[in-house]
Amino acid sequence: MFSQQLRIPGPTPIPPSVQQAMNQAMVGHRDQETKELIHTIQPLLRPIFGTKQEVIVLAGSGTGGLESAAVNIANAGDEVLVAVTGAFGDRFASICEAHDLKTHHMNVTWGTAANPDDLKSFLLDHPTIQAVFLTFCETSTGVLNPIKELAAVVREYSNAYVVVDGVSSVGGTASHMDDWGIDMLVTGSQKALMLPPGLAFIAVSERAWKQIQDNSQRRFYFDLRKYRKSLEGDSTPYTPPVSLLYGLKQAVQLIDQEGLSEIYDRHQLMMNMTRKACKALGLPLLAADDIASPTVTAIKPDHFSAKQLKMMLKSSFNLNVAGGQAHLADEIIRIGHMGYCSPNDVLLCISLLEMGLSKLTGADTFGVGTKEAEKEYFHFLSRKEDRG
Amino acid sequence: MFSQQLRIPGPTPIPPSVQQAMNQAMVGHRDQETKELIHTIQPLLRPIFGTKQEVIVLAGSGTGGLESAAVNIANAGDEVLVAVTGAFGDRFASICEAHDLKTHHMNVTWGTAANPDDLKSFLLDHPTIQAVFLTFCETSTGVLNPIKELAAVVREYSNAYVVVDGVSSVGGTASHMDDWGIDMLVTGSQKALMLPPGLAFIAVSERAWKQIQDNSQRRFYFDLRKYRKSLEGDSTPYTPPVSLLYGLKQAVQLIDQEGLSEIYDRHQLMMNMTRKACKALGLPLLAADDIASPTVTAIKPDHFSAKQLKMMLKSSFNLNVAGGQAHLADEIIRIGHMGYCSPNDVLLCISLLEMGLSKLTGADTFGVGTKEAEKEYFHFLSRKEDRG
Repeated sequence: MFSQQLRIPGPTPIPPSVQQAMNQAMVGHRDQETKELIHTIQPLLRPIFGTKQEVIVLAGSGTGGLESAAVNIANAGDEVLVAVTGAFGDRFASICEAHDLKTHHMNVTWGTAANPDDLKSFLLDHPTIQAVFLTFCETSTGVLNPIKELAAVVREYSNAYVVVDGVSSVGGTASHMDDWGIDMLVTGSQKALMLPPGLAFIAVSERAWKQIQDNSQRRFYFDLRKYRKSLEGDSTPYTPPVSLLYGLKQAVQLIDQEGLSEIYDRHQLMMNMTRKACKALGLPLLAADDIASPTVTAIKPDHFSAKQLKMMLKSSFNLNVAGGQAHLADEIIRIGHMGYCSPNDVLLCISLLEMGLSKLTGADTFGVGTKEAEKEYFHFLSRKEDRG
Repeated sequence: MFSQQLRIPGPTPIPPSVQQAMNQAMVGHRDQETKELIHTIQPLLRPIFGTKQEVIVLAGSGTGGLESAAVNIANAGDEVLVAVTGAFGDRFASICEAHDLKTHHMNVTWGTAANPDDLKSFLLDHPTIQAVFLTFCETSTGVLNPIKELAAVVREYSNAYVVVDGVSSVGGTASHMDDWGIDMLVTGSQKALMLPPGLAFIAVSERAWKQIQDNSQRRFYFDLRKYRKSLEGDSTPYTPPVSLLYGLKQAVQLIDQEGLSEIYDRHQLMMNMTRKACKALGLPLLAADDIASPTVTAIKPDHFSAKQLKMMLKSSFNLNVAGGQAHLADEIIRIGHMGYCSPNDVLLCISLLEMGLSKLTGADTFGVGTKEAEKEYFHFLSRKEDRG
């Protein structure tokens, strides 16, 4: 009867008003209703990406969005670099390889971030790199790569395009795509944008549009030129997922109402609450404080099984957290705190985590993390009141 | 306050219970709930396609499904044939060309069907054709191509793979993919399957799977091998549109409850009602009776503007029908009668059409088509009672 606490790093819970919006009766995809939908959504999406450009919306998983970026910006044989900081960096590299791009990997230990100096050295050694693929938040490790600094290095030391996977960051942490010199920023609907999965988003810089125009890589559904052209008439080249667009309109309006700066503060707070609690509970965090993501936190237990904890949290306490991916599959648990997630939700999540820990290890962990999380939350509210 | 009558050939109205199902709280895409969803859906999808094979479900528009077929079954440079009977045949050809397939077009006048004898001649003249792309229902003209006969010709006179666009046919008219020797059958969610747009479906024959395994065309998101492998564990390679899957489960259960044969009869009836009414009203039909689609009817008025009628039906009578595509854009109107559409809905649609006609042309058309549609409906019910 009671629904689970969904605290995986996406798909994330859907706000009731977004759910409601998706119940709108179906309309024609070429009708005025759909055009108005697209027309209303566009200006509200742009600040979330930090761009003045249009944001292309396509039917597909986030991976479809990443592939769109790759096939539109580079041609088979082009030399590209992927900074691989986890499973999604790996995926970006696999996409590039599937399209016969000559793909260099800049690998770092999972749980650490890509280093701007290393990137600089690599680019100076490889002046023929034509595009650099970066992951903003590496969902598999909870690391927020220093995307502003990384993009700056690419723009300063090369002519390569900067392509960023923003799947679990856009909407949860500030993106200033235009200011940071990012050429393509991709995300999906099921993370900080508070929607079900099924939409991919991609914003493109003016200089990247020039490249896209002439790019000869084979593509049809993912050919961004068609989406841009259709968008001029508030339309799409292929039937869009109309119900998800209704949800999207409501979601971007909710975001607009709360305000981006408030949203980013809330995510920062939720991260701080989670991390403080984990530290108090003696739970080792995979990512260091200075590279921690405001949307997802990975815990790497050292004296019990992460997998067992994850299973117990679900079966005994109705709390759904994620395990790891690839070689970290059974090594970590990941807590998502993004999108339709409040500090209250985080308090509950921490309580349930404490109970799971206690049950699994026998330790008296009751309230230990909650105490720190409450303090963090309390101080946040006090500071806000002082300011307001 | 009153919602429109949506009678375009997709997207189609959503049944309330499907809408309801999509309101389910979000779940993890790798959780047992999602696996059970996929596990329940698969066996119910297969008979709709007429196959014993798994049916791949991917996030995307129908066009994404068509492109998946093309990039998995053929390699750049391969010779393929597309039977172009309208706008969607054209699109299939554009997809093939975008992927550097050596694409032959077998063009017929829009509103007519592809002829099996012509196909036979073409194949005998071009023994190097490796795949033939056919459109089952050509949504742009309301023609149902004789897919069984066309597929039989391909299988008898060549070794080419038979790839079929079933976007507005699957679920509305019988598909016997395995029996007819179809290698790939593609559809989308927003037509006879009674769902919002956002899912593409593709079923694949065993011999086509062998080809797919070795096909070297560049692809990642559309690489069907990954979907098949994931499906073994009731999963998907990328985050599926979970809310649409909940809807799909309910939709295929509704289809199962009504029964495929009853559904196909209902669509046949709705076609007959529409066509009888149009004939009584003196409205010329684009497609001849023997190639008419049970899911969509195109009318080509000869003494007034199709575009004006379409606009008046919407503005004055809240009836939303579609115009034409490409060179038929302003020449025809298309009435969709598929999916969540009953004979009652068709009666209402005909009434409104009569009123629109009367308003536009001044003719006394009240009840003229309805009378014939009612008779058709009445006889259908009588025959059913006699049988039952």
